[in-house]
Amino acid sequence: MNESTTGLLTDPALRRAVDRLASAADDPEILAARVAWSALAEPGEGVTGRLVTACGPVAALQLVEDLAAGVPVPDIPGVTARDLQTALKRWLPRLDARMIAGLAEAGARARLTVLTPEGRIWSERFDDLGEHAPLALWVRGDPEALGGLGRSASLVGARAATPYGEHVSGMLAGELAAQGVAIVSGGAYGVDGAAHRAALGVEGRTVAFVAGGADRVYPAAHAHLFARIAEHGAVIAEVPPGGTPTKWRFLQRNRLIAAVSAATVVVEAGWRSGSLNTAGHAAALGRPLGAVPGSVTSATSEGCHRLMREFDATCVTRAADVLELIGEWDAPAEHRGEDRPRPEAIRVLDALGLRVWRTLDDIARRAGMSLAEVQAELGLLELDGRVESSIDGWRIVRAT
Amino acid sequence: MNESTTGLLTDPALRRAVDRLASAADDPEILAARVAWSALAEPGEGVTGRLVTACGPVAALQLVEDLAAGVPVPDIPGVTARDLQTALKRWLPRLDARMIAGLAEAGARARLTVLTPEGRIWSERFDDLGEHAPLALWVRGDPEALGGLGRSASLVGARAATPYGEHVSGMLAGELAAQGVAIVSGGAYGVDGAAHRAALGVEGRTVAFVAGGADRVYPAAHAHLFARIAEHGAVIAEVPPGGTPTKWRFLQRNRLIAAVSAATVVVEAGWRSGSLNTAGHAAALGRPLGAVPGSVTSATSEGCHRLMREFDATCVTRAADVLELIGEWDAPAEHRGEDRPRPEAIRVLDALGLRVWRTLDDIARRAGMSLAEVQAELGLLELDGRVESSIDGWRIVRAT
Repeated sequence: MNESTTGLLTDPALRRAVDRLASAADDPEILAARVAWSALAEPGEGVTGRLVTACGPVAALQLVEDLAAGVPVPDIPGVTARDLQTALKRWLPRLDARMIAGLAEAGARARLTVLTPEGRIWSERFDDLGEHAPLALWVRGDPEALGGLGRSASLVGARAATPYGEHVSGMLAGELAAQGVAIVSGGAYGVDGAAHRAALGVEGRTVAFVAGGADRVYPAAHAHLFARIAEHGAVIAEVPPGGTPTKWRFLQRNRLIAAVSAATVVVEAGWRSGSLNTAGHAAALGRPLGAVPGSVTSATSEGCHRLMREFDATCVTRAADVLELIGEWDAPAEHRGEDRPRPEAIRVLDALGLRVWRTLDDIARRAGMSLAEVQAELGLLELDGRVESSIDGWRIVRAT
Repeated sequence: MNESTTGLLTDPALRRAVDRLASAADDPEILAARVAWSALAEPGEGVTGRLVTACGPVAALQLVEDLAAGVPVPDIPGVTARDLQTALKRWLPRLDARMIAGLAEAGARARLTVLTPEGRIWSERFDDLGEHAPLALWVRGDPEALGGLGRSASLVGARAATPYGEHVSGMLAGELAAQGVAIVSGGAYGVDGAAHRAALGVEGRTVAFVAGGADRVYPAAHAHLFARIAEHGAVIAEVPPGGTPTKWRFLQRNRLIAAVSAATVVVEAGWRSGSLNTAGHAAALGRPLGAVPGSVTSATSEGCHRLMREFDATCVTRAADVLELIGEWDAPAEHRGEDRPRPEAIRVLDALGLRVWRTLDDIARRAGMSLAEVQAELGLLELDGRVESSIDGWRIVRAT
């Protein structure tokens, strides 16, 4: 597209402010463009995503300025002229170099790091969001935490959790974090807070994706918790510093949690809880989805039971169940673009645990295969270094 | 096979005793033979089932007497000579006309009715058990209750149920029985007892399948409960009067509960509970299977959660969920031997409820079909009188 840079990106104040921002080795111009895009578009806007993907962030921004100035612009694959005109009306009020420079300055003051798809640290899992992938992320704390979400589980649920919900959230998060699984959640009261706290309690990794700016604390009573999360992991936002956590942004934040984690588990949720939105995203993205059962007389478990019935969520009662969910996702992922695994191998791997040793009988039953078939597959998988055996049975060798 | 009747079936004492037994309009000779078979074989023995199916109960009995006397017998399809010799060793100790006459007399004294596959009252669902179908059933109470199990649900679970398990069992059984669903269970302490009691409490129908003789009360403290079940429904046994409830008989009794009900729901069960055996039978027979979730910290819910994970049991939290399970089974059953329903019709029917009205949107989502497709199917189904519509949406027309 347009190679020359004019207008907004040449604004000296904006460039100075962006230069002071921490980043992950990005090209300064791309970084400035991504910062601008993060300010222009609301999270998850499809037209923006398609435009930025088609042109790149710098040229896309130039195109918006041309459009705003009435200069004719070329056809963009996947973006109709009508889409552009509609989106332009949303971008225009924010197309202000001084305002964007101010956001970058606020980010630098709050010691936030901006991460972009072009930088060294990013999660390729966001690719699955397609045109709804985040344009940039603002990180309070350790930016490397985003890269460390390969083996991760999101634990989400009701803000108004019961003691049962908080107990189970903490139990799962603590056991998983102790085993090196990063705990992703939303930093809210209830299930979220219990998950973050338990992960911190065992000195594990935890990341909070928040709906407002990464420099804000919402809810305010979680100021201390957010500080601890930032010390040992990261608080990550899609909207620029100072951003208000609106209803729309909460819903969009949920898609990031679902996309970035290897598995999503809803711990406690009412019939219409926002966590069901996160679960819906996870299911739509093909991510393993779990739900924790509870008493049928408890309103805060109704959403979890609904997920099991309507979304085929796996019934999760202990940390090992979550490890299995993560394994479901990891196993096929390892083979992407490589040799396709044998169907029998997948069934046997599905039937194995990451931590527990399983007997041949148990594996055969879970896999719905004969003992002889299972034994043959295990032999091949052991040669590949995918499984290991002991006197107690078989288990998956963890990917390093 | 052998048309003439000799030996055991001609024993005058046995015939007199059988004549005094209530039955459902059976041929007296077949009835006597079925009573004898019920005494000779343990529940569920496959060789017996194959032999009786191949020869009929009368000729099969004659054949056993010939075998016992060393008379050469013809080849029986599906039963090897070796099978016969092995089984004979089990039958011989019980091949005693006086003993069998005594059982029939005990049945008559206890006012039991003997039901057989040849009689007017039977459940064709037992056919699905194949060679393991019951040879005869002994009924205390109303024999018509067996015929009334078309719309039925079995509620089973831990004897050592918690107050939660008993509460949920009673809640489900009461609501279902009030809506004309017969409640099947095993007459035990805990979940079973709560289910029977709640059905009786709303003057609904309930049937207990017991592992021992129908004239025995086990557990003894359930004497009053069994009397009430017999008054309003039936206590049904596969073994003859006075039979001891052995471990084997409990396991075999479970297959009858699973086979005879339109759906099986496990309310509360430990990790190795006997109710999982009932659930396994239901799954193997293709019967809809449900499980009630509970706290992950409750050992008596572990079995239920296991069923959801490993047997794909449906998460049941209210009576409407059980009605849906029953509907799953009823819908295809109506069409057996008739025109095969269109696959789209099945998907739409699956997405509908028996009681609740569902909107077009909701149905399309559940069925995974477009609104237009769903609308077209609903039109055809309404013409067939299978579904009905109201201002609130659509639902299934109940079979009458």
